[in-house]
Amino acid sequence: MTNRDDQGDYIVAPDPGRPGLTRSVEGIDQSGQSGPVSVVEERPLTIFLNGQEIVTAMTIGDYPEYLALGFLRNQGMLRDGETVQGVDFDEELETVVVRTDGQTSYEEKLRKKTRTSGCAVGTVFGDMMEGLEGLTLPQAEVRSSWLYALAAKINTTPSLYLEAGAIHGTVLCREDRPLVYMEDVGRHNAVDKIAGWMLSENVAAGDKILYTTGRLTSEMVIKTALMGIPVLASRSGFTAWGVEIAQQVGLTLIGRMRGRRFTCLAGDARLIRDADPGAVADEPRRSARKGGAA
Amino acid sequence: MTNRDDQGDYIVAPDPGRPGLTRSVEGIDQSGQSGPVSVVEERPLTIFLNGQEIVTAMTIGDYPEYLALGFLRNQGMLRDGETVQGVDFDEELETVVVRTDGQTSYEEKLRKKTRTSGCAVGTVFGDMMEGLEGLTLPQAEVRSSWLYALAAKINTTPSLYLEAGAIHGTVLCREDRPLVYMEDVGRHNAVDKIAGWMLSENVAAGDKILYTTGRLTSEMVIKTALMGIPVLASRSGFTAWGVEIAQQVGLTLIGRMRGRRFTCLAGDARLIRDADPGAVADEPRRSARKGGAA
Repeated sequence: MTNRDDQGDYIVAPDPGRPGLTRSVEGIDQSGQSGPVSVVEERPLTIFLNGQEIVTAMTIGDYPEYLALGFLRNQGMLRDGETVQGVDFDEELETVVVRTDGQTSYEEKLRKKTRTSGCAVGTVFGDMMEGLEGLTLPQAEVRSSWLYALAAKINTTPSLYLEAGAIHGTVLCREDRPLVYMEDVGRHNAVDKIAGWMLSENVAAGDKILYTTGRLTSEMVIKTALMGIPVLASRSGFTAWGVEIAQQVGLTLIGRMRGRRFTCLAGDARLIRDADPGAVADEPRRSARKGGAA
Repeated sequence: MTNRDDQGDYIVAPDPGRPGLTRSVEGIDQSGQSGPVSVVEERPLTIFLNGQEIVTAMTIGDYPEYLALGFLRNQGMLRDGETVQGVDFDEELETVVVRTDGQTSYEEKLRKKTRTSGCAVGTVFGDMMEGLEGLTLPQAEVRSSWLYALAAKINTTPSLYLEAGAIHGTVLCREDRPLVYMEDVGRHNAVDKIAGWMLSENVAAGDKILYTTGRLTSEMVIKTALMGIPVLASRSGFTAWGVEIAQQVGLTLIGRMRGRRFTCLAGDARLIRDADPGAVADEPRRSARKGGAA
């Protein structure tokens, strides 16, 4: 059970009660009985950078400005020195324009797309890998007691996921405090919204942990590393390339976190096992498909 | 438990033991103990249509030809009358070229991308919606006894998911028989591989059911409808737009299928509730995030 103190950790928490994020539709169950069903809204948001249309994202629509900023940043379309001068969201047109002092010339990049398991558009995969060259992540430390505390708090935080399902969540954390919990229909939107928030609020990345419901794929690992966050954790599993990249860039990669169990497949040096796993409530192993890798 | 008869249903079944689909890496668990961990491979596959590079997909790499064919078909890039003359996979270059007798002119479409929750590249969302206009799906019928039987068989079929996690599965079924079970790191890859198989084998769609681990988003519904399949079912939840589109095109949409429970949010007229839900083993409701919407 979360108490007020746990919820007090959040700077940005999910707001499942906010109007417009879910809709009630009529459904008929296995017995033929009708009843209301809460489903999440998804709506298109077209992102522009300095007048150039970049992409249309399907999103629940709660943080269009953060989504646009974070998407562009994570796709490498905002250079380090570039100043963001404004972010203008037009609710009627369902567009958001990010204005900077830089030049935008992404015709070439936009031609070549990479469809990854999670959906990266706008960047050639090679470009994303290039961004990793020479990248170093800070030493930092992460304690297993923090991971257990984070999982417990996050899993009980009221969210669209708990209310309506069909949604991904990613949480920016520091030590055992969840700080910014973003959700969206698209796993990468949730991460991009966090990146946009960090850029907007000028928040440091080196002392943070990124916790996600999503799978630890190559794209997820690359994004986290490019955001400068040295620790990435998930309930879900890994792909081989995700593991390889994490090892190459020295990111601490922890997956299959359920109950007392987790597996670290890269960057184990940062991990301090200060908690007794036996003291943590366990989760039964799944023997057949249950939660589904939706 | 699946018996030989159940496995005998499959025309294409997952082959988790096949070399190259998973890799063993060394992981360290919560107690500091080392051990081997099986993780899925993902590798890039660049798809060409008549000499034009279309997209690079990250895939586990088991059915590159079906993936290419199905992707192009589901993106509306293969016209109905167009004849596929050849599909050439080059393992070294990690490319697959689909050759047809048609003209390819997708410069315009490739410029505008839509990032959806699952990742559609190469088609403006509007184009996908256009494809639905005037589309009619056959009456067909689907029995709840079939759905329960399918779920039981599919959930116990040996798969990469059960072995290594971090993967999506979609199964083409007819009545209570699962026929073609495709998996991949990307949910849409799995669907596209099925579409490619159907195109390749010239298999009818109107009497089929599509069962997926994935969420029933707008894109998933559109794809299923464009494939001509009248019934789409999933363990997972829905988005509002997915429901709306299903209602508009008259697709039978069944989600949150767990144990004896399911909810039909569109096309209920096709559904015949011939099974007694009480006779089906139940699955405990989840009260906190468990399986995760990875």
